[in-house]
Amino acid sequence: MKINKNYQNIEETYLFSEVAERVRKFMAQDGSASLIKMGIGDVTRPLCKSAVDALIKASEEMGTESGFHGYGPEQGYEFLRDTIADYYQETSGVKLFSDEIFVSDGAKSDLGNILDIFDQDNIVAVTDPVYPVYVDTNVMAGRKIVKLTATADNDFLPMPYPGLQADIIYLCSPNNPTGAAYDRTRLEQWVKFANANGSVILFDAAYESFISDPEVPRSIYEIEGARSCAIEFCSLSKTAGFTGTRCGYTIVPGGLVRDGIQLRKMWLRRQTTKFNGVAYPVQKAAAACLKDQGLAEIRENIAYYKENARIIADTFTELKWPFTGGVNSPYIWVRCPKSMKSWAFFDELLAKANVICTPGSGFGECGEGYVRFTSFNTRDNTIEAMRRIKELYSEG
Amino acid sequence: MKINKNYQNIEETYLFSEVAERVRKFMAQDGSASLIKMGIGDVTRPLCKSAVDALIKASEEMGTESGFHGYGPEQGYEFLRDTIADYYQETSGVKLFSDEIFVSDGAKSDLGNILDIFDQDNIVAVTDPVYPVYVDTNVMAGRKIVKLTATADNDFLPMPYPGLQADIIYLCSPNNPTGAAYDRTRLEQWVKFANANGSVILFDAAYESFISDPEVPRSIYEIEGARSCAIEFCSLSKTAGFTGTRCGYTIVPGGLVRDGIQLRKMWLRRQTTKFNGVAYPVQKAAAACLKDQGLAEIRENIAYYKENARIIADTFTELKWPFTGGVNSPYIWVRCPKSMKSWAFFDELLAKANVICTPGSGFGECGEGYVRFTSFNTRDNTIEAMRRIKELYSEG
Repeated sequence: MKINKNYQNIEETYLFSEVAERVRKFMAQDGSASLIKMGIGDVTRPLCKSAVDALIKASEEMGTESGFHGYGPEQGYEFLRDTIADYYQETSGVKLFSDEIFVSDGAKSDLGNILDIFDQDNIVAVTDPVYPVYVDTNVMAGRKIVKLTATADNDFLPMPYPGLQADIIYLCSPNNPTGAAYDRTRLEQWVKFANANGSVILFDAAYESFISDPEVPRSIYEIEGARSCAIEFCSLSKTAGFTGTRCGYTIVPGGLVRDGIQLRKMWLRRQTTKFNGVAYPVQKAAAACLKDQGLAEIRENIAYYKENARIIADTFTELKWPFTGGVNSPYIWVRCPKSMKSWAFFDELLAKANVICTPGSGFGECGEGYVRFTSFNTRDNTIEAMRRIKELYSEG
Repeated sequence: MKINKNYQNIEETYLFSEVAERVRKFMAQDGSASLIKMGIGDVTRPLCKSAVDALIKASEEMGTESGFHGYGPEQGYEFLRDTIADYYQETSGVKLFSDEIFVSDGAKSDLGNILDIFDQDNIVAVTDPVYPVYVDTNVMAGRKIVKLTATADNDFLPMPYPGLQADIIYLCSPNNPTGAAYDRTRLEQWVKFANANGSVILFDAAYESFISDPEVPRSIYEIEGARSCAIEFCSLSKTAGFTGTRCGYTIVPGGLVRDGIQLRKMWLRRQTTKFNGVAYPVQKAAAACLKDQGLAEIRENIAYYKENARIIADTFTELKWPFTGGVNSPYIWVRCPKSMKSWAFFDELLAKANVICTPGSGFGECGEGYVRFTSFNTRDNTIEAMRRIKELYSEG
């Protein structure tokens, strides 16, 4: 039996374990320090009432003869796919057909599993810094990877360039980790490139609900031509606090055809063969979040995080630290002061302000000299963390 | 961009759509017929009270600041993995370590996804008849497949033979579709073969909870040597009626090493990269089913289905129709009377008894001349279906 040797080429990510280790060491010296975690990539607010009510109601149904649900459709229940279609129509003006929508247990699963339908012999383009899953999943499959540099020079929004060879292109907008978001004009150029070259864009829209700028598309399908070149991944994780409830959705438009075959049909085949759908109560809860009262409730939570982001962004503006994100995103990507390297600044912030951030160098070479802050904390903690940072770094 | 061309080699499975189509046509002619579905592969009894209570309690927690759960461990919560370890200890006497247990959204997902860790260049052995997922997932990856014939001659339990070349071996016991189950002696031979040849057995134990014969192992790890050659897949789908609630688990023993690498570590890498764990309320419900009161409740449901299976098996014994299964399995695999072919018997049964079964030929060439009955129906329907069959086929 031969193992998949490509696994030996995956670089171990020590980022979060190293963060934990340094925090542990620090606390061993100064156990009384009141730490504030500003690097956290997970939501903190509870599920909204509509979601909880729907979960409970569906769970009760599952205990009755008449309300019990066994195997559901692998692609997701019609009631949820219709709700997602309505959500797209309302938030993006995008019209989707029900058979283009695939419900899953989360965007991370789909972003990895979608690669099943592509040949090993494809060149993959990712940005640097990058969400590591895009890289690792392709290394596992033995694909060649090219990196697109995201720096202050291009507003952290890499663009296609003459001579770029890329069959599969990952775009995450609003971006994790940088918080930068593609506007309409820039996204049009990517769609044009993909259609001209027969590439496929894998568009990670996990943070779309944080967008408030009307110039920033919430769905790539707002761009003309995207239906023939893009697959979109989205999730209720950040939109509705579903990181522990697990529900996402992937859009594969009917117009996306390669080698004469609808990718929608290939993905359907993959999902019906290797997946059995999402729990009925979870689908009910997801549907409850994306309409009516539930939508109002999740928007309240998003507004809460966005206000935290504003407080962080305002602090960095005051300190004159260059940063991106914080407006259409829960993430703020900030240049370390005094030309410090990512880990040096991390250590200083931990030691002197007892604030934990995420070192940008952990997301790729271009992340060196940056750190990531997130808005997933309480208002009080966010204000206190920023007070400490201002106290420490304000001049005069 | 190049698509995965292997997808073009997957044979379309028309089995269940063809069943539905023939039923539709029949009902269009005789709309008043009272059909009984005896081919159904899905559970029908509601979730047990302990599961529903746990789902509701965990859902309520998710709506509170203090009880909210965000991202959980990809491998599953410790509380569920510990419960699964205890369940193994109690039902099989098998001792598992917590880090060998991987919680997932179901056995079907894991049976497909596990192939990620194997090279394309492996020979795969499946039985004929076969659960189609084993074949399709390997065709998608372009692997060579050999078929092991399961007929009355070998009690529907294929065995290794001299010269057999197989790197990856699928064994499903108790079997879907035949209901046949490997006893200890036979399973020992497979473990011996795998260890001697460096093969890996993928052991699908989804129906283990239906086993009552002490000579039939509920886990392959009851066999000495299995920890160095077998991965076991199990699920709460049939054990606890979780087909619509979605929770399974996969065991990759620490002793399973190939090319100097622990497969457990590769699978952990796969899961942390392409999966984000199972919903917290679902894991709570699963844990509730596998211990104490919950275990008593799910066993009541299994006993209900097993009594249905006995009623079906007794009918075929009375009719002198050769069959397998029905004792350690919810499935009964029966030879069609009068040497009929699978579809001919299906049609006759539909037309004359208004009973629906599943044609065996849909599971592989060796399934021709057989049909599958299942015990996933109400007691009344099962009794009535058997009454009609006896009336139709009893001699004299």
